Amino acid sequence: MADPRLVPPSEITGRLAAFRGRLRRRGLSGALLTSRAGRFYLAGTSQDGALWVEAERDPVLWVVRDAVRARRETPVEVVPVAGRRELWGAARGRVAPGRPGIEADVLSVADLGRLGLSAGAVEDVSGELLDQRRRKSPWEVGRLEEAGRIAAAVYAHAAEVLRPGLTEVELAGLLFARAQALGHEGLLRCRGFEAYSWHVLSGPNCGLAGANDSPMSGEGLSPAFPVGAGRRTIRRGEPVLVDFGVCALGYHLDQTRTFCLGAPPAWLAEGYGAVEAVYAALRAALLPGRTAGEVFAAGAERARELGLEGYLGPPERRCRFVGHGVGVELVEAPLLAEGSPHPLEAGEVVAVEPKAVFPGGGCGAEDTFLLTEAGPRPLADLPPGLLVV
Amino acid sequence: MADPRLVPPSEITGRLAAFRGRLRRRGLSGALLTSRAGRFYLAGTSQDGALWVEAERDPVLWVVRDAVRARRETPVEVVPVAGRRELWGAARGRVAPGRPGIEADVLSVADLGRLGLSAGAVEDVSGELLDQRRRKSPWEVGRLEEAGRIAAAVYAHAAEVLRPGLTEVELAGLLFARAQALGHEGLLRCRGFEAYSWHVLSGPNCGLAGANDSPMSGEGLSPAFPVGAGRRTIRRGEPVLVDFGVCALGYHLDQTRTFCLGAPPAWLAEGYGAVEAVYAALRAALLPGRTAGEVFAAGAERARELGLEGYLGPPERRCRFVGHGVGVELVEAPLLAEGSPHPLEAGEVVAVEPKAVFPGGGCGAEDTFLLTEAGPRPLADLPPGLLVV
Repeated sequence: MADPRLVPPSEITGRLAAFRGRLRRRGLSGALLTSRAGRFYLAGTSQDGALWVEAERDPVLWVVRDAVRARRETPVEVVPVAGRRELWGAARGRVAPGRPGIEADVLSVADLGRLGLSAGAVEDVSGELLDQRRRKSPWEVGRLEEAGRIAAAVYAHAAEVLRPGLTEVELAGLLFARAQALGHEGLLRCRGFEAYSWHVLSGPNCGLAGANDSPMSGEGLSPAFPVGAGRRTIRRGEPVLVDFGVCALGYHLDQTRTFCLGAPPAWLAEGYGAVEAVYAALRAALLPGRTAGEVFAAGAERARELGLEGYLGPPERRCRFVGHGVGVELVEAPLLAEGSPHPLEAGEVVAVEPKAVFPGGGCGAEDTFLLTEAGPRPLADLPPGLLVV
Repeated sequence: MADPRLVPPSEITGRLAAFRGRLRRRGLSGALLTSRAGRFYLAGTSQDGALWVEAERDPVLWVVRDAVRARRETPVEVVPVAGRRELWGAARGRVAPGRPGIEADVLSVADLGRLGLSAGAVEDVSGELLDQRRRKSPWEVGRLEEAGRIAAAVYAHAAEVLRPGLTEVELAGLLFARAQALGHEGLLRCRGFEAYSWHVLSGPNCGLAGANDSPMSGEGLSPAFPVGAGRRTIRRGEPVLVDFGVCALGYHLDQTRTFCLGAPPAWLAEGYGAVEAVYAALRAALLPGRTAGEVFAAGAERARELGLEGYLGPPERRCRFVGHGVGVELVEAPLLAEGSPHPLEAGEVVAVEPKAVFPGGGCGAEDTFLLTEAGPRPLADLPPGLLVV
């Protein structure tokens, strides 16, 4: 029986055929995939190397290390190369003729030079790749549901271990350890920006703006990594926001729940109620055919009706999006952004995350949905509402 | 009293002065720092933005978010910008005239285009930055020692919790949670390559080659993240290799220990003995004035004398380096690489990691040292030898 951790060859074959069709329509000779996410999606392996997908010939995967493992993981032809210099040399010979595509948002200026190419001689194909990845196959939905089972177990664990006196980062570590034991990869793959640690925030830190494009970034442990869980001690009667990505077998899910130890203060109970009403409006709008901008507007409109001033952050620095696709990267297309004309389609998977900040902190909820003609289907079975423990 | 998490302004002032001197000697008008590590090192903050260090004028830090937090963290002038488009617009105006430097190994092709610049119009200054970072200040050594205290506590915890029946990833999660609670940032900053999770490997996985440029990469949880701890259950009488980076207040330390539950098999006891002899040879060679290549050669020579065939990996894919600098990134200059002509200097900090693979698995040791005229000084107080528990 095949190793259940592998991506089935039929998935890879289908993805490559669709991507080669895109290359042909763009008039490109091929595309060089250098990111791990790009190689994992199109070849099923992220061993160290580069993948060349040619419009009119079979693809080739140059592997620095480890070719033996790569051959077990991918149906694509694997060509071992001795080192990085040999990798770029091999790629130059195949990539430079014609009109090649590259992942311009993640390929470095130095590596483009190693290919012997100038920016004018290549085209950016990241948009094609992200567009293709929007719609998930049934097999991919199964992987996302596996991530959802881990997430559900982690929230159940949080309800068991949460107690006054724990610091944010102590709680984050306990939850992370549980997630890892259940199969969380340990890292989140974040295209073009640095991965971050889990956002376990408490009290005023739930309303603390920072380096992330998010209503609340948290304190982090130092100015070097200034987001996520900090050293603050969790107390009774305050929000504890637990926002994390889980990655299982290469597929991410994103979700948020807000806990409170004991009875929530009035501002939190009322504020969370308003966020829940916005969540309901967003969920009702998540239908194929609607544009991403219409979904954003449905949430913003409901927040205005409710007078929720700190919706998606303080007015002067409100976030311009309320959700995002997830998959082989934590944040991918589509972005549920203000004004986006992109129409949603059945088969897309989006995390929706209405959050709000208040003078005393903040709160929010986030779930990941599969879009279907019959309405959005959540991919994890998480408890609803403000979680009072 | 100043927040002890902040980088003292005197450190920043000194680093900027030295870096501007390098820019002048290179005939550059300035350098645009876009990496978090670059901005944290030269400005003391890694809020989201870009840092322009001009050869002949004061530096400026454009901050997308969060300018309030950035101002608390850096003595450099902070100029808030409304978003990423405004950031690149502001940078274009200051950077494009003259001969600017960029971090070519990490700046993306797309971002260079957003600056309105071609690769021919800029120079790579990453080498200057990495060269300057080699020598640590006494304040930086204090930070590294703090990371060392966390590492020591994590190994003590490993000796307590290690038992047959735990999986590699369960053990990794427990150790990570302890490290986080003690102040480990949770992420490792790895220039130009994706960060990875902790390498807690057991039995044959201690000899498993993979995507990392390392004698053993481990199994990982899936082909998406194919390095580090896997799902294998730890047993008695086999190696358990525990290799991890700790990052405290922005400064990394790197270390490895090999454990064994109960009496080690003969191959492991003998093999570890040989690795220890190589370790001693490497340590004796770590003197200012020696070249990095001479240090590498001292280890390779001792391994040959001992007939240690799997030293730094199987012969056909042996690693060409045995150590590396550490600091604001996990792997930085100098690299203790085969043939490197770079002379070591007092004040440099290097992790030295002799490891070997055998038919039954592998083992190794790693410590991080401050180089001094009197010899190398370890920056963490870790137990020596094969750790039998």
